[in-house]
Amino acid sequence: MAASASGEATRIMLAVNESTIKGYPHASISCRGAFEWILKKIIRSNTCDFKLLFIHVQVPDEDGFDDMDSKFASPDDFKKMKHRDKIRGLHLLEYFVNQCHEIGVACEAWVKKGDAKEIICLEAKRVQPDFLVLGSRGLGPFQKVFVGTVSEFCVKHADCPVISIKRNADQIPQDPVDD
Amino acid sequence: MAASASGEATRIMLAVNESTIKGYPHASISCRGAFEWILKKIIRSNTCDFKLLFIHVQVPDEDGFDDMDSKFASPDDFKKMKHRDKIRGLHLLEYFVNQCHEIGVACEAWVKKGDAKEIICLEAKRVQPDFLVLGSRGLGPFQKVFVGTVSEFCVKHADCPVISIKRNADQIPQDPVDD
Repeated sequence: MAASASGEATRIMLAVNESTIKGYPHASISCRGAFEWILKKIIRSNTCDFKLLFIHVQVPDEDGFDDMDSKFASPDDFKKMKHRDKIRGLHLLEYFVNQCHEIGVACEAWVKKGDAKEIICLEAKRVQPDFLVLGSRGLGPFQKVFVGTVSEFCVKHADCPVISIKRNADQIPQDPVDD
Repeated sequence: MAASASGEATRIMLAVNESTIKGYPHASISCRGAFEWILKKIIRSNTCDFKLLFIHVQVPDEDGFDDMDSKFASPDDFKKMKHRDKIRGLHLLEYFVNQCHEIGVACEAWVKKGDAKEIICLEAKRVQPDFLVLGSRGLGPFQKVFVGTVSEFCVKHADCPVISIKRNADQIPQDPVDD
């Protein structure tokens, strides 16, 4: 047995999501933290031996909560809304792909729609990464009851090894439920 | 942000235990699998940037189950038993330290006594590794009820990120509870 000198890249899947903080650009604090953790602690200077797989799951806005301030006067308005959601998802992935490109780490990124925790597990099964990394808000037990965590579900149900990276204490916003 | 070119080594803590299969030499299937996973998927050729921290927790043999066939005629016999346990723990660590030495990965190894899951979490808190790796038997829900898993406890309670590596399907012994 020896540490491999070459061979296929280690494929790390990272689930990314948008920040819940209004006006905050793009990626959530947790998923940016998880991304930086991978670079700093795993990939380090060995950029050629890894490939990052970014998945973003868009939750269909069934209750229209995100569009409380929007006005809908025609079917086109709904199309616009869906188009806008798509654009936002792409901007999110663009952020991570740009970062990888700058650093010189191979990557792929894609968007899916549905229930985040279930889609992440399905995609992990389909894509078979070496492991899955999830950013986590690191909420206390009281907050978890109301918010639930995608990472807990994936740790239990994903086919591949899963590592959950909690937000740093200095990155917690005023309301810890925000991200 | 950039992948770090140098800086402090990434410190990976790995909990190791003995095989439960009689006559089987040293390390359990799961923990050897987890060790090989770290080498192959994380460290790869980048041996200088990582340090492995091996912890082995010896469970005090309170019910004397392991010594059913031993005869105790004097206080010295008990001392011998304790001495023998210590030797076995050291042999286990020697296996991993030798492997690291051959590959050229820095490491440290130590033994503690007590309840494995609690001691591992306490040691993770004390030593503050970047993350903790645990081999897991990957038992089904029915078997878990009786056996319990150290890794599930540590995923929930350890201060640092935890990744649990399941045994490969081709490494499962006749009785999946064995390891």
